[in-house]
Amino acid sequence: MKLKNLLYAQSGGVTSVINTTAAGVIETARASKKIGKVYAGKNGISGILKEELIDTSQESDTQIKNLKYTPGGAFGSCRFKLKDPKENPNEYLRLLEIFKSYNIGYFLYNGGGDSQDTTNKIANFTQTSGFPVQCIGIPKTVDNDLPYTDNCPGFGSVAKYIAVSTREAALDVESMSDTSTKVFIMEVMGRHAGWIAASSSLASEENDGPPHIILFPEKKLLQRKFLKKVKQTVLRNGYCVIVVSEGLRDYKGNFLSDSGKIDAFGHKQLGGVAPRIAEMVQIKLGYKCHWSVPDYLQRSARHLSSKVDFDQAFAVGKSAVEFCLNGDSSVMPVIVRLKTKKYSWKIGKVKLSKVANIEKKLPSSYITKDGFNVTKKFRTYVEPLILGEAYLPFKNGLPINANLKNKLVKKRLKKFS
Amino acid sequence: MKLKNLLYAQSGGVTSVINTTAAGVIETARASKKIGKVYAGKNGISGILKEELIDTSQESDTQIKNLKYTPGGAFGSCRFKLKDPKENPNEYLRLLEIFKSYNIGYFLYNGGGDSQDTTNKIANFTQTSGFPVQCIGIPKTVDNDLPYTDNCPGFGSVAKYIAVSTREAALDVESMSDTSTKVFIMEVMGRHAGWIAASSSLASEENDGPPHIILFPEKKLLQRKFLKKVKQTVLRNGYCVIVVSEGLRDYKGNFLSDSGKIDAFGHKQLGGVAPRIAEMVQIKLGYKCHWSVPDYLQRSARHLSSKVDFDQAFAVGKSAVEFCLNGDSSVMPVIVRLKTKKYSWKIGKVKLSKVANIEKKLPSSYITKDGFNVTKKFRTYVEPLILGEAYLPFKNGLPINANLKNKLVKKRLKKFS
Repeated sequence: MKLKNLLYAQSGGVTSVINTTAAGVIETARASKKIGKVYAGKNGISGILKEELIDTSQESDTQIKNLKYTPGGAFGSCRFKLKDPKENPNEYLRLLEIFKSYNIGYFLYNGGGDSQDTTNKIANFTQTSGFPVQCIGIPKTVDNDLPYTDNCPGFGSVAKYIAVSTREAALDVESMSDTSTKVFIMEVMGRHAGWIAASSSLASEENDGPPHIILFPEKKLLQRKFLKKVKQTVLRNGYCVIVVSEGLRDYKGNFLSDSGKIDAFGHKQLGGVAPRIAEMVQIKLGYKCHWSVPDYLQRSARHLSSKVDFDQAFAVGKSAVEFCLNGDSSVMPVIVRLKTKKYSWKIGKVKLSKVANIEKKLPSSYITKDGFNVTKKFRTYVEPLILGEAYLPFKNGLPINANLKNKLVKKRLKKFS
Repeated sequence: MKLKNLLYAQSGGVTSVINTTAAGVIETARASKKIGKVYAGKNGISGILKEELIDTSQESDTQIKNLKYTPGGAFGSCRFKLKDPKENPNEYLRLLEIFKSYNIGYFLYNGGGDSQDTTNKIANFTQTSGFPVQCIGIPKTVDNDLPYTDNCPGFGSVAKYIAVSTREAALDVESMSDTSTKVFIMEVMGRHAGWIAASSSLASEENDGPPHIILFPEKKLLQRKFLKKVKQTVLRNGYCVIVVSEGLRDYKGNFLSDSGKIDAFGHKQLGGVAPRIAEMVQIKLGYKCHWSVPDYLQRSARHLSSKVDFDQAFAVGKSAVEFCLNGDSSVMPVIVRLKTKKYSWKIGKVKLSKVANIEKKLPSSYITKDGFNVTKKFRTYVEPLILGEAYLPFKNGLPINANLKNKLVKKRLKKFS
């Protein structure tokens, strides 16, 4: 019997190690000898609907290895949500057509909560279609907001980047504060969940910072209380480092930085809360401020990835293929923290129906009572996730990245509209 | 005869390797056995005037070694310009009092163009004071705008950081561009000189980017021409990466992002040109934009320093002490590029009077005719400066930084006002 082929695709905001997961999928599938071709959807489900399939068998083992060192989504990602199959089955019927035509037995979708909703819908649809495809979700998100997994691949690396960057910038600000900048504000990603902002706390071993103040999307900004804390900090330390989540809201519940635009998932497009805070501090307290918005730099900083994150990103890719070979469907590999003294973990499994469309926010037990810092409990949680350096090879002073052919297969189906 | 002491201080905006220079000074002075104590001025000349001197002999060899891995200015820096000695000699008389009281034979000031003006004034003053002090300037600036040196310590590392970050973020944008962000704008430092912006070109091996467009402070922004180039780039590549200098000016010569504030040196305080460009592109062309302002992160990213820069930063510190022992004064060590096939360099020497207050802008031969990119000549210049990785030790997932006592000597003089 002809071996079934595998279709892998990337979805949603990318991470610095999502391609490490892709390498985990491809290397494991190649080694198994039980899977035919590994196709990759170009630009996620959006490209798959257009029959834009990349034949990864054209890529050498070396280039697949180089994927592990390459940030971004090597096959293209997308922000694209499938419609409800009951209301509009067209997209699902098209996918079925693709799956049949390319003898797809396994569909692996690498994304966050929104994407796992898509994976689950496809899984359910193929179950009753007469052409069942094993659908496996693979977790990925810098936001760390997926439930049922101790942490999400991608998060450990951004946590490390933000912790190191906060530490480095704080040393800079501290040395200039006598005659120049007194307050430094860094805006980090996190629309609804403050995991990334919280991880900046690792910059110091103690809770007295820097960062001296962390502003979470889970806590509304009380301006007077905040400014009082800034002033106290400057008077005590000579300077103040503030880390703020892009999703910070005012006391009325409005985003401090609401651009008024909406993305393809219907989320409000944010950005620019750091300059807002800087303006507030400068006007109300008169301190010279500098602000930073790393934006995509934080989630693509493969040069500073955590080794733990790197290993876990590879492992979820590998496990997803093993789940396929084990006959599983409608599940997602998760990271399970083991109850050992020294941090250790294993891969577990959860049903997709449980994770789809759920956002795991920062528990209140992880935020200090005054709302401006993290608790010891959070530090214990996050510390192991940034451990180790996932060094990558450099050439001419720059990282070596994968150079894929990304050759599309010749289309054989009618155009989809 | 009692050995003369050395006074070292840091000035102006710090770099990721200015402390490497400090280590070069202290280690060389310690090893020479010909220099008494090495004092460090707290917060540059500003602290010296207040008799805030740090006795570095209290620091262990291990901590001085750790300085090499620590960004920021470990003894504090300042933005503080001495008045003209003819108009107001008080500050100079105070310095003389400090120098005499602490038996200072050598004054080493580690800074950029403004700071070397200060060093030169002090050198001239002590020459005629009856208590001559050998004054040596040590170059440092991420802006790479000092004349008579092939490049400035601090620049190679920020160039590497910006090149790597541009590459990483571009991979991110490229993978999302089909259904999400089409244009990414990163704002980098450079008030009047576009060296940092130009170095982003290294992200690609070819001039066809990313970055596809670089906006220099040396070139006024012609909005229509720029928007046309953005549109062409998106139509051809599907996305466009733009790197812009903070000091970009409009066709009238006004800074695009003029906050209206002035720093201690009388420079206009800038920031926020990236969101301005993003707004322009979004409104005029309708493309979804993301923007990034790394700000201090770029000049404090010791975790990604260039090995060439690291070696040169150490060498200028070492050479400054050797100049002292050689009887020199009113000079600065510079980096001389040797005419070898493979990049090599040596330390040279220049008179302070030549470098003070001069800004070396990007030569027009380094910018392409259309004004949006760099020439091969610039690439040849900059490529060697980012070579090698100056790895640093990590503990618990974070860099090991110096933990100095920074103990101030007991004051013995009257308060200076």
